[in-house]
Amino acid sequence: MSDQNKLALDFLEICRIRVDTELDRVIERSSASVRLQEAMRYSVLGGGKRIRPALCLAAAKAMGQTGEAALAPACAVELIHAYSLIHDDLPAMDDDELRRGRPTTHIAYDEATAILAGDALQALAFGWLAETGQLSESARLSMVQELARASGHGGMVGGQAIDLESVGKNLSLAQLEAMHRHKTGALIEASVRLGALTAPFVSEEALNSLSSYAKALGLAFQVQDDLLDIEGDTEVIGKPQGSDAARAKPTYPALLGVNGAREHLSALLTSALESLRNFGSEADSLRAMADYVVARTH
Amino acid sequence: MSDQNKLALDFLEICRIRVDTELDRVIERSSASVRLQEAMRYSVLGGGKRIRPALCLAAAKAMGQTGEAALAPACAVELIHAYSLIHDDLPAMDDDELRRGRPTTHIAYDEATAILAGDALQALAFGWLAETGQLSESARLSMVQELARASGHGGMVGGQAIDLESVGKNLSLAQLEAMHRHKTGALIEASVRLGALTAPFVSEEALNSLSSYAKALGLAFQVQDDLLDIEGDTEVIGKPQGSDAARAKPTYPALLGVNGAREHLSALLTSALESLRNFGSEADSLRAMADYVVARTH
Repeated sequence: MSDQNKLALDFLEICRIRVDTELDRVIERSSASVRLQEAMRYSVLGGGKRIRPALCLAAAKAMGQTGEAALAPACAVELIHAYSLIHDDLPAMDDDELRRGRPTTHIAYDEATAILAGDALQALAFGWLAETGQLSESARLSMVQELARASGHGGMVGGQAIDLESVGKNLSLAQLEAMHRHKTGALIEASVRLGALTAPFVSEEALNSLSSYAKALGLAFQVQDDLLDIEGDTEVIGKPQGSDAARAKPTYPALLGVNGAREHLSALLTSALESLRNFGSEADSLRAMADYVVARTH
Repeated sequence: MSDQNKLALDFLEICRIRVDTELDRVIERSSASVRLQEAMRYSVLGGGKRIRPALCLAAAKAMGQTGEAALAPACAVELIHAYSLIHDDLPAMDDDELRRGRPTTHIAYDEATAILAGDALQALAFGWLAETGQLSESARLSMVQELARASGHGGMVGGQAIDLESVGKNLSLAQLEAMHRHKTGALIEASVRLGALTAPFVSEEALNSLSSYAKALGLAFQVQDDLLDIEGDTEVIGKPQGSDAARAKPTYPALLGVNGAREHLSALLTSALESLRNFGSEADSLRAMADYVVARTH
């Protein structure tokens, strides 16, 4: 294991503990339905690497912030991510029965509860972000706007719609990237931008550099996901290996070959790191996260 | 038709035109998927009385506001309402094929698109509310918080979960009201409160009075809905008559008898109007809306 990777794993672990503790508190608030609240907790607190919250905290660090203020946006992006996984797994969508090695929410509970748990988590994400006391009203409002754009029909949900429309179709590399820029890229970029926006002042230049970093990283994340789907072990990746190919979903290896996909991944990593060239050691966690995303085995 | 009812219908019609024009603009923004955007437009712009936006505009009027500033929150509550209808109609939930006399979204499109259209509309509601330029940052932030609370697991979504759990069960009147206070009451109350919050200053007393009005009105709305379900005409109400009874859903007429439900409705109307006693003619639209909700035939 490289030193960078060790650094990333340590950073991820610290973030995971902080974010999980906070998420536990966020979903503690009483719900009108015990079963609904249980399903929300099951979906959010049942593991997960917390890559998006870690990126949010790492971006705050890159802007000289301690991270306390970034905890709320970190939780908000994870709540959005968690809701999207619940809905993506539904029978009408990807119809997955296994997630992170456990039954998906609609299997552990039922379809109706899964739909509602996802809906409630989305509302909670925006509510939590708007309420957090540590940030200025102006910052919170910008964050709500950014998160809504990144997660809505012009971002994540739009990408999921393109994904469903693409099954069984031959996409060009440009079309495949457009899909992933929306489906996973937009929320990853928002994670980084929200972290940066916890700083009292962020220059347009710094925000653009961080966005470029996040854009490259988001695509790299997806290329590695595709590679893991054909090379990974079901037990390690927590879902059936080869499930993309079985569904005739367009993937990078299918389009570029496995070696071509690996080269593309490497180029994206270089591009992500290059975007951080004007940052000093304060961006080392972001650099480590980029290395980690490319090297991860699940 | 009473004068009050005529006033309400005129007010509703003016609101409907303003809100529909604005909603058309809100969903005009380009989506990543044409099909997704079409499904969103189909669901939001396919009719509807716009009672919640009208309540929002009427509450703004009661606080001396012209209504321009209340247009964004009025659209936001309607977007939340529209998303909840799409998800409620899904096969895993109420499994309805008809809504406002047209095929429900999952019938007109498909289940996956319907789930995503609902998800995207929720994100759009919060994004639009946060972005609107006419209101102070502080007001927008309060509104995002209120809307998130009212629509999430402690409000509307929580109520929908209780509703699903209550099918085939004998509820007490208190339990039935608790369900409706969450399921429909919370968003109706938020509609009124968001409208009031468009005023630069709102006293705690005025806000409490408006909340009491909205709470009584929300329950009245549901009692009338239950009565319409057993007395109404399928063609007029836009969904199969008797559908609640067919699903063994607990209703007011089932619990109180038809006459008992009518008396309860009348008491709720009196309570709603009584809550407005300290307002002058500026609250006449709210008063007219209360009369309308009780007298409506669909």
